[in-house]
Amino acid sequence: MARVVLGMLGLGTVGTGVVELLSKHRHLTLKKVAVKSLDKERSATPNCPLTTDVEEIINDPEIEVLVEVMGGENPTVSYLERAIKKRKHIVTANKEVLAKHGPRLFALAKEHGVAIFFEASVAGGIPLLSTIHKGLEANEIESVTGILNGTTNFILSNMEAGNSYAAALKEAQELGFAEADPTADVDGFDVAYKLSVLAALAFGHFVKPETIYKEGIRNITEEDMALAKEFGYRIKLLGTAARGSNTGSSGSTGSSGNTGFDVRVHPTLVPLDHPLASVSGPNNGILVRGHAVGQLTLIGPGAGKMPTASAVVGDLMNLAGALKLPDFASYFQPAIDASPASAVPPLAWKCPFYLRLVVKDTPGVIGKIGNIFGTHNISISTIIQRGVEGKEATVVIMTHDVLGKDMDAALDELKKCDFLSSLGNAIRIFRSA
Amino acid sequence: MARVVLGMLGLGTVGTGVVELLSKHRHLTLKKVAVKSLDKERSATPNCPLTTDVEEIINDPEIEVLVEVMGGENPTVSYLERAIKKRKHIVTANKEVLAKHGPRLFALAKEHGVAIFFEASVAGGIPLLSTIHKGLEANEIESVTGILNGTTNFILSNMEAGNSYAAALKEAQELGFAEADPTADVDGFDVAYKLSVLAALAFGHFVKPETIYKEGIRNITEEDMALAKEFGYRIKLLGTAARGSNTGSSGSTGSSGNTGFDVRVHPTLVPLDHPLASVSGPNNGILVRGHAVGQLTLIGPGAGKMPTASAVVGDLMNLAGALKLPDFASYFQPAIDASPASAVPPLAWKCPFYLRLVVKDTPGVIGKIGNIFGTHNISISTIIQRGVEGKEATVVIMTHDVLGKDMDAALDELKKCDFLSSLGNAIRIFRSA
Repeated sequence: MARVVLGMLGLGTVGTGVVELLSKHRHLTLKKVAVKSLDKERSATPNCPLTTDVEEIINDPEIEVLVEVMGGENPTVSYLERAIKKRKHIVTANKEVLAKHGPRLFALAKEHGVAIFFEASVAGGIPLLSTIHKGLEANEIESVTGILNGTTNFILSNMEAGNSYAAALKEAQELGFAEADPTADVDGFDVAYKLSVLAALAFGHFVKPETIYKEGIRNITEEDMALAKEFGYRIKLLGTAARGSNTGSSGSTGSSGNTGFDVRVHPTLVPLDHPLASVSGPNNGILVRGHAVGQLTLIGPGAGKMPTASAVVGDLMNLAGALKLPDFASYFQPAIDASPASAVPPLAWKCPFYLRLVVKDTPGVIGKIGNIFGTHNISISTIIQRGVEGKEATVVIMTHDVLGKDMDAALDELKKCDFLSSLGNAIRIFRSA
Repeated sequence: MARVVLGMLGLGTVGTGVVELLSKHRHLTLKKVAVKSLDKERSATPNCPLTTDVEEIINDPEIEVLVEVMGGENPTVSYLERAIKKRKHIVTANKEVLAKHGPRLFALAKEHGVAIFFEASVAGGIPLLSTIHKGLEANEIESVTGILNGTTNFILSNMEAGNSYAAALKEAQELGFAEADPTADVDGFDVAYKLSVLAALAFGHFVKPETIYKEGIRNITEEDMALAKEFGYRIKLLGTAARGSNTGSSGSTGSSGNTGFDVRVHPTLVPLDHPLASVSGPNNGILVRGHAVGQLTLIGPGAGKMPTASAVVGDLMNLAGALKLPDFASYFQPAIDASPASAVPPLAWKCPFYLRLVVKDTPGVIGKIGNIFGTHNISISTIIQRGVEGKEATVVIMTHDVLGKDMDAALDELKKCDFLSSLGNAIRIFRSA
């Protein structure tokens, strides 16, 4: 195989895994790695010089492919831009940069005749992107839904054993599954970036991350986990990207003039016998629906050193094999529109809800709740009151399909009621996208 | 996109699905379809001439790609050979031809500079082959295990509801999931062909189908299904292809001089909480283990008109996009050795067993069975006797890991014992490959 010369930005966990896997593939020659500090102690160092000066890599005409595993938005995006202008192909694991700057980066790559490979940016070791882009090429992709964040899945799995959110987060941090500042994971940003990238492949448009509805897992309690289980569900943080919104229309027009897609991140009650319910710990699990194939389920390690490195080096091998073909980038690059799309706002979705309310145990509470829901077109499938008489009680409600705006209005009205001590939680229930 | 001219052999269920999907892709021009009879009534006909003369397609220099969805070994293999010699690329769904003649066909294709695409030959709509070949390119594939036959999975799912094998088979036939002669499915031939193809991609060698151990589902009874469930298992027909045999060595040398792989088809007790246990009806579910990625699970429709057509047309689109690149076949074709490998014989495997024995209820039976197993190095984890006193009783045994040859020897000795009325069944229990 022809020799291909690589440069790499970053030598953290994933970068170290990449170096390890590359050692078996001599034709993929790592020439230089840019790191923040030369003094840091490392478990493994590549068989090539390290540098703190990224310019040495970007300006080296011999380096044909830039492997970017440093992460973050800035200054990474400017490095990528300049590498593309120097006609270097890119292999990146950076969902944030792609979600925020993808349209521009892909246009630039097209202009300069280079390819951007990014399998590692979504779902870690699961070859989800190549499945959508190549494996299901004959399909119109209708939706991609699933567990796309291993950190939150680990925390939720841990909470099922009866731990509080705080205790489960702490354990995840101690085991290296969660960052010291867990915001990107637990508040849904990480999943939103991944959904934007998935939408680009599945629907041809990146979706602006700021338009994606993000609801994280901070407010999930052990009580919610236990009640969900009692009703035959498990709570998972699901990301969904669907071609049409689930309002029945096939996509509405967003403010940008592009089609709006149904893209969102929120905790979801998943039936216990559903394949996604069995995805535990730091794994990812994704359902892909195509118009011809029907539904596929993919489950596997969504993060971690070797699984993510497996995706990066897989990209490198696929790229290297084709690199010498004339104009190969035009064949390998997915067709992504230069203008990003917007997500439709949550008010228009329809799905069933789980609600946990804390109420003062006074006569007629159930009736009052039922009346409020009725006036907002909300049909209740189950309502249960529990508690010590004369004290506070917990009311658990499962609804049929509800429009988001109807639920919002009903909750607003409930909050004004004297009998409500607190709105415990309102969590969506799984509904096929 | 550049126009690509196709010819097709076969217009059955899958062929009709291919025609349907191709209608959206005008650059993939179907020029002619060869059928057995022009008089047959068809639910849909392509927008091109039909012929009963295959030569019209093979000898048409304008046709660049031959789509083979006629199935069967003969005369199909000779058509494929001659098409390759005429420098036509092949897209086929034919696992039998590949398993039996793959090494020769791939060598011939290499010689003539054409590609053979065969995603549809294994696991229907699940892009399992592209996952192994491209998605996991950076991995050494250690094993592929799973439910690879939708017909038998449908029958087994149906038997769980309490139906007999005969009744479940009849229903499968009535619903079109099973052939009038179900041999290829229920006796494991279909799975063996698929394993041979999977081994070619995963390990670089087709495995001679006649060397693959095949045990089908004909002897599974409702009683076995119920007992398995009681012990926390579900019975599935699993196919396994593993790089090393599970004897602890990393592959033994077969009689052909090639490495022998651990390749086999047999009913297996799968723990109820294992992802493969949840694969029901005509679906397929596959575990792929790679050295870097760890374990992936893929679940989806393993057969059927549109899922299989999705795989065929996906191949056509991937092929068409690259067809004009010089020498593209050398990039797209997996490296498969010209000499097929053999499977190691079952005597060398180790796994736990489930046994159901029908015995005369005389004193000391359990002790006698225990002694026989003990002398053959078989450690029993559970033994239960059930039945009406003085009449026949059922003894159910779960063992720890056993060598196949030890189990064979123990069963031979048991069969000579007066107390044994019949050897009900001996079924392997799932053990990670």
